[in-house]
Amino acid sequence: MPDHLSATFAALSDPTRRAILARLSQGELSVKELSEPFLITAPSITKHLKVLERAGLITRSREAQKRPCRLESAPLREVDTWLDRYRRSWEHRMNRLDEYLGELEAKGERKHARRKKR
Amino acid sequence: MPDHLSATFAALSDPTRRAILARLSQGELSVKELSEPFLITAPSITKHLKVLERAGLITRSREAQKRPCRLESAPLREVDTWLDRYRRSWEHRMNRLDEYLGELEAKGERKHARRKKR
Repeated sequence: MPDHLSATFAALSDPTRRAILARLSQGELSVKELSEPFLITAPSITKHLKVLERAGLITRSREAQKRPCRLESAPLREVDTWLDRYRRSWEHRMNRLDEYLGELEAKGERKHARRKKR
Repeated sequence: MPDHLSATFAALSDPTRRAILARLSQGELSVKELSEPFLITAPSITKHLKVLERAGLITRSREAQKRPCRLESAPLREVDTWLDRYRRSWEHRMNRLDEYLGELEAKGERKHARRKKR
């Protein structure tokens, strides 16, 4: 089984590549359009695009002359699924914290009520 | 602002490190206990633990002699928050696909009804 997740995480470990994905989440863009807001050279953008493409995070159209880049969500959905196990564990911990705080509050209220009675 | 997310994604880009986190999601473990199911040397495990520790994904107790490792969920929650923008976009696309399939089905039913009338 090829290790998709490792390739995805490695591709996401760079802030420029994440910024490229964020821009593509608004719609398809050509390499020229993509390069505009970045203060790096076109060859460097092309390198980043290749890493994203190999990880399956983007595809480039073969038809149009501009070969626009497009975001592919499948690898991100894999990350989302991978997170499930951890999400369950931190939600469980948050629920236990809520319960504990609720108990503390209830105790505080009882104390307050007893003080009022005196 | 230190780039937490890049460090987190880089730490997660290795299958052994993800396996270590999966084991720690069940509870604290010493380095010796952690090493057992892996076919790699203890120094190699220690290297992986250092990467995880630098990314804030695990902490090691300073008190007990065994210095057990413990999973820290904060960086994973950051990844979860980072995914939000993309989750919204793929859910939006899925909803549009559902609508489209619903329309196709409705058309199919109308056609079927017309055919029955004849």
